[in-house]
Amino acid sequence: MMTDSTETLTHTLVDLENRRIVQANLTVADGKIGRIDILRELSLSEASGTPCVLPGFVDAHVHVESSMLTPAQFARMAVRHGTVATVSDPHEIANVLGIAGIEFMLESARAVPLKIHFGAPSCVPATAFESAGACLDASAVAALLARPDIHYLTEVMNFPGLLAGDADLAAKVSAARLLGKPIDGHAPGLRGAEAARYFSSGPTTDHECTTLDEALDKIAEGAHILIREGSAARNFDALHPLLRSHPARCMFCSDDKHPDELLVGHIDRLVARAVALGHDLFDVLDVACVNPVKHYGLNVGMLRIGDPADFIEIADLASFRVLRTWIDGNLVAENGTTLFDVPTSRPINRFECRPQPIEAFAIAASALPANVIVARCGQIVTGRMSALLTARDGLAVASIERDLLKIAVVNRYNPDAPPAVAFIHGFGLRRGAIASSVAHDSHNIIAVGVNDLDLMNAINAVLAERGGLSAVDGGRRAVLPLPVAGLMSDLSGETVSTQYQLLDTMAREMGCTLRAPFMTLSFMALLVIPELKLSDLGLFDADAFRPVGLYD
Amino acid sequence: MMTDSTETLTHTLVDLENRRIVQANLTVADGKIGRIDILRELSLSEASGTPCVLPGFVDAHVHVESSMLTPAQFARMAVRHGTVATVSDPHEIANVLGIAGIEFMLESARAVPLKIHFGAPSCVPATAFESAGACLDASAVAALLARPDIHYLTEVMNFPGLLAGDADLAAKVSAARLLGKPIDGHAPGLRGAEAARYFSSGPTTDHECTTLDEALDKIAEGAHILIREGSAARNFDALHPLLRSHPARCMFCSDDKHPDELLVGHIDRLVARAVALGHDLFDVLDVACVNPVKHYGLNVGMLRIGDPADFIEIADLASFRVLRTWIDGNLVAENGTTLFDVPTSRPINRFECRPQPIEAFAIAASALPANVIVARCGQIVTGRMSALLTARDGLAVASIERDLLKIAVVNRYNPDAPPAVAFIHGFGLRRGAIASSVAHDSHNIIAVGVNDLDLMNAINAVLAERGGLSAVDGGRRAVLPLPVAGLMSDLSGETVSTQYQLLDTMAREMGCTLRAPFMTLSFMALLVIPELKLSDLGLFDADAFRPVGLYD
Repeated sequence: MMTDSTETLTHTLVDLENRRIVQANLTVADGKIGRIDILRELSLSEASGTPCVLPGFVDAHVHVESSMLTPAQFARMAVRHGTVATVSDPHEIANVLGIAGIEFMLESARAVPLKIHFGAPSCVPATAFESAGACLDASAVAALLARPDIHYLTEVMNFPGLLAGDADLAAKVSAARLLGKPIDGHAPGLRGAEAARYFSSGPTTDHECTTLDEALDKIAEGAHILIREGSAARNFDALHPLLRSHPARCMFCSDDKHPDELLVGHIDRLVARAVALGHDLFDVLDVACVNPVKHYGLNVGMLRIGDPADFIEIADLASFRVLRTWIDGNLVAENGTTLFDVPTSRPINRFECRPQPIEAFAIAASALPANVIVARCGQIVTGRMSALLTARDGLAVASIERDLLKIAVVNRYNPDAPPAVAFIHGFGLRRGAIASSVAHDSHNIIAVGVNDLDLMNAINAVLAERGGLSAVDGGRRAVLPLPVAGLMSDLSGETVSTQYQLLDTMAREMGCTLRAPFMTLSFMALLVIPELKLSDLGLFDADAFRPVGLYD
Repeated sequence: MMTDSTETLTHTLVDLENRRIVQANLTVADGKIGRIDILRELSLSEASGTPCVLPGFVDAHVHVESSMLTPAQFARMAVRHGTVATVSDPHEIANVLGIAGIEFMLESARAVPLKIHFGAPSCVPATAFESAGACLDASAVAALLARPDIHYLTEVMNFPGLLAGDADLAAKVSAARLLGKPIDGHAPGLRGAEAARYFSSGPTTDHECTTLDEALDKIAEGAHILIREGSAARNFDALHPLLRSHPARCMFCSDDKHPDELLVGHIDRLVARAVALGHDLFDVLDVACVNPVKHYGLNVGMLRIGDPADFIEIADLASFRVLRTWIDGNLVAENGTTLFDVPTSRPINRFECRPQPIEAFAIAASALPANVIVARCGQIVTGRMSALLTARDGLAVASIERDLLKIAVVNRYNPDAPPAVAFIHGFGLRRGAIASSVAHDSHNIIAVGVNDLDLMNAINAVLAERGGLSAVDGGRRAVLPLPVAGLMSDLSGETVSTQYQLLDTMAREMGCTLRAPFMTLSFMALLVIPELKLSDLGLFDADAFRPVGLYD
């Protein structure tokens, strides 16, 4: 800890501003870089293989909630990987708890040194097709944006709304512009004239590109591209050529980082991959350390005199193995051990539903083919197929042989809403059911199972904990409680990661053929194409709680 | 801790001997079960949902080395899952270090309460087709078997040798019989008259059954069947019907349990799965807790008066979530936390090889098709194909497009032996190389890569640590050092698990399409059919270091 002291050490230092590597005496005083006395310049080959000091890494877009850890526990894991700051959208908790949820995130983050920069969520609720727990209208968002601890307007995912001139959304964008705060974009697949209109109406970034062409198109329209590689979407392989063609227009982000993968690495791994691919060291480090700081105007040091003393020491410029991390001059992590304590938080939640009876999941048999959701391994976008369902005693039942299982969503914000129930192909479960209250973006309880009893028990197990993940196979049950908003745990990353892996293991033991059963489950409620007509769905009562996931 | 004290507690207790559940006062005195005062009998439904006390779980066949943890560190993880004892074959370290390796295992295990019962390895070296580090002949094995801390003769995997009357093997079997110590079998696929002869010549168990028919055949010949579900082979789904038809003839085992999976669970998970499948609770617990104790004559308690006080408390009789574990009356784990310290061990190793030059991996081009090893996702048995290799400058080189990569094995017991080099299909790497000194059963260094430079660097990275796993992608490198025999680490299970997962993640980032890249790599040297003719191999000089893995 050196906040109040002055300390000078000789390091091999990556000077990003001048694109060089130097041997220098680095003096830290009062949490800031006091002096950098350069002894000599080193060639890249002289510096290879030796520990180096450089600015810390920034994740330019990460939903902390997806780690299933509170911000403080997230910080404890992230600093080990050299992350000194994030730009974070509290969209998930805001969909559950509105402003109170955002306050929780801010408070949890204040207790730890990691510089988590929260924004005002632009799209709560995320969709009109599913019930969320809160609504943040333009005046609520404007009030948030006016706060000094709210740094930007988060991903404008309702791009059709922005293009169509939705008044409430336009007011949010105006508020951000007026306050001079950046506006994040989110426009998967948008191209040409529509992309031009989108990026001229406020958003300056996009993290949804899946092809190089799409990214180049958006760069031409002025967008900064966040190259995303997380637990859900993985676009690094498609987009890394941008690091050569447009390094000044790129940042790295993970978007969603599940607990097991956060344990293993963070932005440090993308840096190592990019350098191994032959990209220029200084370009890659600008993308990882500098561009987000400049774009979002973060109070994060870039290892210049007078900057906050946020920096890291790595083992070498190839592995980028993080040895130590400093934030505001304090050593916060060393060799995989975090050096600060994480205070316990007071959980906050919203869970207004009752245990479901088994009858709630019954669907009358029909002689007509039904629409069936198709889950795809490793993908969060669903497909659709048509199938004649198996009937028994007048009811439509799952067919394990054909992998036609039941999927249900229970509204957790309205105890009187009946569950939405449909059929899904692709999970491959041969026994039992799995359930989750992490269910983007409204975070109702979603479950897939081979029979109504296990389906009910899996859902009710989540309900009993007021949020979490569960796997139920007859009497055999495993639950990961997520008492904070039904999204996060207050336990350590190691504990949550182990429990999360146990649940995925159990789902596979029950026959699930997906690479990541619970990740896939959590995205089955995601609204992919908002224009869907409910009348297409066949199985549902459109006036009851809205069904989910049937969007190609 | 209650070794020297007397403590009485009221529990719901599973009385396996009398196949009932009772409310009882349990008195532990001096590490033994002092009294059991039964208050009343409970029905299964009365006991459901409440914590229960029962005997601890036994893994009836596990190579501790496969956890990549020393026995003491293995114990620290296993007791959290309710494991109180194992039957363990130190076959892997014996192949590297002979008797000295076995001594290391015994010493490490003595420092912790888990009752690890080691045997005398019957088949060191495992094969004549690859160079191992040691040879245990009949007199060495007989001397081992005479020791009180050596409990059985381990898996007689050279079943053709036993059937053919191999004199050295017959002498080992005789020594075990003379001393009245059990003999473990290992005879994959053996059926009919040959199975009858095998099981009448000494072995009394088999853990290699992959189908129910095979198991029933072997049971008819007198064998006890170990239902195996580990990180490599997974036979539970195929064999669980034996729990109904022949519960008295079954035990559970994992054989190989890698660090990431040991973190998540052990025999506790098999018990929960079996009970969820509807198998009788008492039968399943006999299989998990009692049968191995009786078969191997272990000094492990079965919760009877006078027994060592080895028992566990679980959350309920469906999840089998382990709350607490006692061994010899001492509470050794509670709610996922281990309550004993693990002393540091003095690493022991044998690594006699030099860094390899890049030329060592060159193969001259040929106009003829070459034999190519085929790795299969999730399987340890290799296949074979024939392919015309890509030639460049007179050399045969990898083809990323056709997934024809180089595989090399470097002899770690003879610094003058040239590497064996061949081609392999199925790994899917598009960049870099991965290497491992865990390479069943001789544990030379095995590596797969897309070019000779990365292949050399991956191998030399393992060599520099005198054992371990490595992934190399140009300058980007990750290494998990395994300084104990090139097989194990002295670090905690949590640390080793995270590093192991990082390596698998990196292999996948480099394009590997296998479910478990390093597990698969470690088995590519496994001798599957010993009758193979080396002249079939084509690419190799049969007099040089022996090639591996080319066995269909």
